[in-house]
Amino acid sequence: MSLTLDRDRFVSTMKEQAEIGGTDGGGLHRLTLSEEDREIRDWFAERMEDEGLETRVDTFGNMFGRRAGTDPDAKPVMVGSHLDSQPYGGIYDGALGVVAALEFVRTLNDAGIETRHPVEIVNWTNEEGSRFQPAMQGSGVWAGVHDIEEQYARTDADGAMFEDELERIGYRGDVPCEPQEEYEAYLELHVEQGPYLEENGKEVGVVTGIVGFTWGAITFHGEADHSGPTPMHYRKDALVAAADVITQIRRIPSTLGERTVGTTGYLDVKPNSINIIPEEVTFTWGFRDPDDEIVEEARARVLAEAEWAAEREGVEWEFEDRMRVEPAHFADRCVDAVQAAADDLGLDSMRIFSGAGHDASHMHGVCDTAMVFAVSEDGKSHNEEEYTSWNDCYNSAQTIANAALSLAEGE
Amino acid sequence: MSLTLDRDRFVSTMKEQAEIGGTDGGGLHRLTLSEEDREIRDWFAERMEDEGLETRVDTFGNMFGRRAGTDPDAKPVMVGSHLDSQPYGGIYDGALGVVAALEFVRTLNDAGIETRHPVEIVNWTNEEGSRFQPAMQGSGVWAGVHDIEEQYARTDADGAMFEDELERIGYRGDVPCEPQEEYEAYLELHVEQGPYLEENGKEVGVVTGIVGFTWGAITFHGEADHSGPTPMHYRKDALVAAADVITQIRRIPSTLGERTVGTTGYLDVKPNSINIIPEEVTFTWGFRDPDDEIVEEARARVLAEAEWAAEREGVEWEFEDRMRVEPAHFADRCVDAVQAAADDLGLDSMRIFSGAGHDASHMHGVCDTAMVFAVSEDGKSHNEEEYTSWNDCYNSAQTIANAALSLAEGE
Repeated sequence: MSLTLDRDRFVSTMKEQAEIGGTDGGGLHRLTLSEEDREIRDWFAERMEDEGLETRVDTFGNMFGRRAGTDPDAKPVMVGSHLDSQPYGGIYDGALGVVAALEFVRTLNDAGIETRHPVEIVNWTNEEGSRFQPAMQGSGVWAGVHDIEEQYARTDADGAMFEDELERIGYRGDVPCEPQEEYEAYLELHVEQGPYLEENGKEVGVVTGIVGFTWGAITFHGEADHSGPTPMHYRKDALVAAADVITQIRRIPSTLGERTVGTTGYLDVKPNSINIIPEEVTFTWGFRDPDDEIVEEARARVLAEAEWAAEREGVEWEFEDRMRVEPAHFADRCVDAVQAAADDLGLDSMRIFSGAGHDASHMHGVCDTAMVFAVSEDGKSHNEEEYTSWNDCYNSAQTIANAALSLAEGE
Repeated sequence: MSLTLDRDRFVSTMKEQAEIGGTDGGGLHRLTLSEEDREIRDWFAERMEDEGLETRVDTFGNMFGRRAGTDPDAKPVMVGSHLDSQPYGGIYDGALGVVAALEFVRTLNDAGIETRHPVEIVNWTNEEGSRFQPAMQGSGVWAGVHDIEEQYARTDADGAMFEDELERIGYRGDVPCEPQEEYEAYLELHVEQGPYLEENGKEVGVVTGIVGFTWGAITFHGEADHSGPTPMHYRKDALVAAADVITQIRRIPSTLGERTVGTTGYLDVKPNSINIIPEEVTFTWGFRDPDDEIVEEARARVLAEAEWAAEREGVEWEFEDRMRVEPAHFADRCVDAVQAAADDLGLDSMRIFSGAGHDASHMHGVCDTAMVFAVSEDGKSHNEEEYTSWNDCYNSAQTIANAALSLAEGE
């Protein structure tokens, strides 16, 4: 059996969600637990009710809607993603996966299709991690990776606490934030956020896994002196040491692997005055690769570079690991279901490893998981220029719907 | 004739001023136009009244106290510095020069010495430039380098306007902020803020001039992409380009001159998130040297480096000149007066070029000028560790008092 989503309804639903928190620049500013997040959650809850789904909200705000299956012993197939956005992010990131899940159950209802397994659609809380860290927080708590009390206590840049904000928007539910039963599979559709599909002229991506990564921060402690009368050989300049390491972070990936990436995204200078030699600089590293040994090697390399830079500039240094995630290799049967769906739809697909983390990273530890990628024009995401054509959105939604149907039918 | 200051009174006056805005760390937090600045100004006004000086405050808050001379046609000799401090700065920077000026007139009064030229002591408004930019603001307006209305409109980080704050603390005076007559000479005692006197085992510095400098800011415009799925060869990372230039700013001085220094003190990253490739980075350059051609060459070099770094990383760039000051070479007769005073006192001195700007930089354009430097231990300043021994403070105060006396006597 094959499903065909209503293209017009699918596109208009994508546009509908993009109105809530939409920016003048054509993007989305829908930060987790904000007013806009409350609005989109209300919208999603209503849409699930419209379809007669059995809805629940857990104690961390994750929202689920279930469509019953015919076999009381069959485990549910979960499909979804997240509705929160980056600050001034794009309208596809996350939302595409949730809208595709919604259209999947709408289409099952319209066609009167019954599945052996229950189908559950989900909107995970705070995937982006931009207002409250870490990213993929809701799925992480649900999967048992994070302690809920620790995550409740996280604060945003204004000092607002996660737990208070969750209460405030009315989305602290009653259901414990953990799996209530075993799951058959988890499927997630997401925009690629990279250029590989477009570069290879493909219509859809069959995601075989997610890169592992290491995140951390290095702090150099130099000496704050007047930038005029302090001779060069007297200086212990924390920013010069940081610049050394940042240059190497640009270079390290080219010595390790084809898919290795390395980034310094954050840097803070103290006292940050044109006339004072920087006393303290903290900056981050981030390295990702499909191969866990390469991730580990990149971390070792950046720490060696920090040591050398500190010695070169005569400054003290320290570091802090912020996050370490092993690469995920998805279950063959889920990847195969996605591949078969793409093939049946006559779509030109390629197998691809995800360069970004997703809620699927945590779900991978709970049940068999796979993902579908939609083409990201120019590989752009996390900004208002993020773009995926409606054709590419629709093709990828068709793919996940048919893959989910085949898993839910238990074939 | 030679003067001998009262060492005990001098030291206790230094300690007295250090109480106002004193920090737990033994430094000073006496930002310009703050409550602490109002207090120290009130204190200084009272001390000038105590000595029977004819005081005035100009429309920019600069405070003057005049001791009459015997010759009605003789032009005044001005001596002073500033009483504001850096955030958590030291107790000597600026204050030493004002206290020495005060002790100079106190000693003239005690000894009943009359001078041919009037003697004027001064406390310049906002030398530090940390709350309101630029540095040396009061002397700059007075010397006609800055437009007063433009400077009134400057705001601090909280948006408070200079003019309002000056009114608020009650130090917007009635006298126009400009020279009311010609001046015979200007002398200023300041801590060296560099290591040369200590390194050479000298007791006092005879300052022959002030280095010139160039300040500016470079902005790189890259592309904000997700740090995971964006391959290295797709990136246009503004921070990597900035790191290239910062590394070269460390290196450029070593290719130019013995006294050349170069610094990046300020850097700002947008959006500054661990997971996003930096889109926009603005950072500053600052180069100083006694030779103006070297200053110009340093500026040209850093702009060339910015061009190359932008090309290397595929980012756009722009720059902004912030300040450009030519080196000052002090008048021989003033430098000679300082040298003679040091020699007469039996102090081991050396001629030195100032690596920092001072109010004397602007006064150099108004009348013959020179400076005296006191030893800075480890060359430290602009922080609470700034230290000059009472011996070094006293020796340098003795030097400026005797140099000022010889100029005021008109010998």
